[in-house]
Amino acid sequence: MGSTALDDLSERLGAAVLTDPEAIAPYARDTSRAAPEGEPIAVVLAASTEDVSAALAWASAQGVRVSVRGAGTGLAGGAVGYPGGLVISLAGMNQIITIDPANRLAEVEAGVITADLDRAAQEHGLFFPPDPASARISTVGGNIATNAGGLRCVAHGVTTDSVAGLEIVLADGRIMRTGGRTIKDVTGLDLTSLFTGSEGTLGVITRATVRLKPVPEGAPRTFRASFAKIEDAGAAVAAIVSGPAKPEVLELLDALSVEIIESFHPSGLPVGDAAILVGQTVGPRAEADAAAILEVCAAHGSVASEISETDTLLEARRLSNPALNARGLRVSCDVGVPIAALAEMFLGVEAVARDHGRRVSTVAHAGDGNLHCTVEAGESADEYAAAETVIDDITRLALSLHGTVTGEHGIGSVKRHELAWQLDQTAIDVQRAIKHALDPSGILTPDRGI
Amino acid sequence: MGSTALDDLSERLGAAVLTDPEAIAPYARDTSRAAPEGEPIAVVLAASTEDVSAALAWASAQGVRVSVRGAGTGLAGGAVGYPGGLVISLAGMNQIITIDPANRLAEVEAGVITADLDRAAQEHGLFFPPDPASARISTVGGNIATNAGGLRCVAHGVTTDSVAGLEIVLADGRIMRTGGRTIKDVTGLDLTSLFTGSEGTLGVITRATVRLKPVPEGAPRTFRASFAKIEDAGAAVAAIVSGPAKPEVLELLDALSVEIIESFHPSGLPVGDAAILVGQTVGPRAEADAAAILEVCAAHGSVASEISETDTLLEARRLSNPALNARGLRVSCDVGVPIAALAEMFLGVEAVARDHGRRVSTVAHAGDGNLHCTVEAGESADEYAAAETVIDDITRLALSLHGTVTGEHGIGSVKRHELAWQLDQTAIDVQRAIKHALDPSGILTPDRGI
Repeated sequence: MGSTALDDLSERLGAAVLTDPEAIAPYARDTSRAAPEGEPIAVVLAASTEDVSAALAWASAQGVRVSVRGAGTGLAGGAVGYPGGLVISLAGMNQIITIDPANRLAEVEAGVITADLDRAAQEHGLFFPPDPASARISTVGGNIATNAGGLRCVAHGVTTDSVAGLEIVLADGRIMRTGGRTIKDVTGLDLTSLFTGSEGTLGVITRATVRLKPVPEGAPRTFRASFAKIEDAGAAVAAIVSGPAKPEVLELLDALSVEIIESFHPSGLPVGDAAILVGQTVGPRAEADAAAILEVCAAHGSVASEISETDTLLEARRLSNPALNARGLRVSCDVGVPIAALAEMFLGVEAVARDHGRRVSTVAHAGDGNLHCTVEAGESADEYAAAETVIDDITRLALSLHGTVTGEHGIGSVKRHELAWQLDQTAIDVQRAIKHALDPSGILTPDRGI
Repeated sequence: MGSTALDDLSERLGAAVLTDPEAIAPYARDTSRAAPEGEPIAVVLAASTEDVSAALAWASAQGVRVSVRGAGTGLAGGAVGYPGGLVISLAGMNQIITIDPANRLAEVEAGVITADLDRAAQEHGLFFPPDPASARISTVGGNIATNAGGLRCVAHGVTTDSVAGLEIVLADGRIMRTGGRTIKDVTGLDLTSLFTGSEGTLGVITRATVRLKPVPEGAPRTFRASFAKIEDAGAAVAAIVSGPAKPEVLELLDALSVEIIESFHPSGLPVGDAAILVGQTVGPRAEADAAAILEVCAAHGSVASEISETDTLLEARRLSNPALNARGLRVSCDVGVPIAALAEMFLGVEAVARDHGRRVSTVAHAGDGNLHCTVEAGESADEYAAAETVIDDITRLALSLHGTVTGEHGIGSVKRHELAWQLDQTAIDVQRAIKHALDPSGILTPDRGI
């Protein structure tokens, strides 16, 4: 690509194009372990849907590969820049257009920080259910593009369950709207769901209409149950989610995670048990629901428990990533299994760790059957590669239990070799046929996601 | 198409192909007002996924148009036979393969009657949430293909919210699986949601893995509130769905529907008010929740109310279709509006009816903002055409309130002219590009749905 072409792009977009390598560098990586294979040639700091449209029309015409990013907090390598490619950043499109309390809807630009939307909704007695661990730094658009999960999914579903409609720019620059403002709508194909979780492969999400929920009355309760056997905790989770008392959060921490989190930031987590379940109940019956959940735990062999009005337990849980990284547990996954297979999965992960002679921690969105297993690794490439083989074994174990290779982070580039482990070839072919139909030049996040 | 080609199909499938016009006739129509434009040439009574695969491979090779049906209860003309076309009936594929209580999943063939699945689930203390009014005669596969709604959507969402995975036969006969058995899964594009509600245009659903829920404890309660002004009922609905007491069912009947239903089958519905809300609460707090909902109604001007332990009110509601038909209200729609626009929509429908000088009844899944307006019409084509112009005005009214042309029945052939009223041209083009990518011969339910 000659400088004339780049000049043409800059001219169409004004000052919003970065071409200085030092300015570009921060936009070339995401938060995953995927390293860029080379530097992108420019970054478009989009300020409007029209900017995105102009940039994509240019990229399609030039055959330039495009990576798309909100805050760059993705964990699967989906937003890493392409060598000689264009980066489109939506971070500057951060306006909350409207909040409509009567219909419990919000219209936002893609670059709005997820926690900012939640805060704005709270002013109307509402909240935005999706809460990935990154909610304070990630964007609504990025959450939608990856169909992000989080701690509250056990009660409110994943991001797609909170998306009512999208504005999307296609690879050739055309702009379209999907979905709308109703609760039910079966007009045509469900493009909203198709683009949610499409990881930048089909189009660029520039705006979204999202669903809000009323903030429950009363003060929440956090609860904790400790187990001497991790498989008992797994069985307890399966019983809790089938029971009448519904937790809003239901997380599991194994012994290693508890010990590491507590040493990283002491907050009174009890150390030494095989596993603890921590969670939250909300609403006027929060106390009674927490007690009912702990009774289920007791019936499944829990050895200690507590109910608290403070958020300390969940705050400790939220520290797991920095705590694990600080202790050299660096290579992680986000596999999922059917809920009744949790106990077997937990034991299997321990067996994989023993076989490899490497420490592996497990922190799980247990109520969804979604595990984050993190493997210790030195900082060398060899060490990472060795840790990856542990992840591979854990992933194959999850699949043998009818699970999934990714419950919430996405395929990106990091897990692309695992696609065919889970999907049949026809399903892969169909996904690529859909992509080709919408992006015939193959410029949008190529060779990732699908 | 020569008889040789048909012989070839019969040979591949054995006795499962009907070619006698009298045998074919019952398979040429669905339950909508769409009339076949000519007779199909054959019906495949599929007994297996392989039968469907062979039939589609044959149809693709021959360029024969295919309509697909479960029980033929569709209301949008999606399953009407094509002149010279092939009909594939899934009704014979009616096996419940497994019920997995621990994971609250069931694996079923597409032709299983929805109520049969629900009944089988109840034996395990579980239930299947989707309950279109046709649940006793429609199939799970048909419900999925249309993303059917129903009475319980206000609590449990629409059909897509209960679908975990699908087995699909593509137009060329290839077989694929989508989704799986986990709660969260972001591996690749969300093909499960894409095919759910695709109305036979992208592939034929032959099996499904569906989600079940635990039957709530305790006896349900039904409740009723009467309103002197229909707009007050609309405002009450918006307040109820934002409140803490959640109904499982929340339906509205206007004065005309109440009068007609009560005269069709007297069951004690109070006649003479502008509108009534009838609904159901479930679980251990059913009585308290019903009382709380009726308090909201009172705050919004309800003039009478009752709570009952019997199902009489909802049974009366379920009779609305035959009752309206018996009194000459025959041409209906299923538009949706944002919940806060319900009051304005109800008044607007009354104004449309006055303008046209035709009686129009409104029965609504009010908690979802989804209305069934039914227009009186004589049996002549002219009368139907006149009634259609009323439906058109009601539909444009819904769209002017940011609504949808179809909340739960689908586009089919009956509403295809309305697609462009709601969707922008790019969204329509994208849908057709996806269809073309998956069905390049254009044999699968062509010129309908999208």
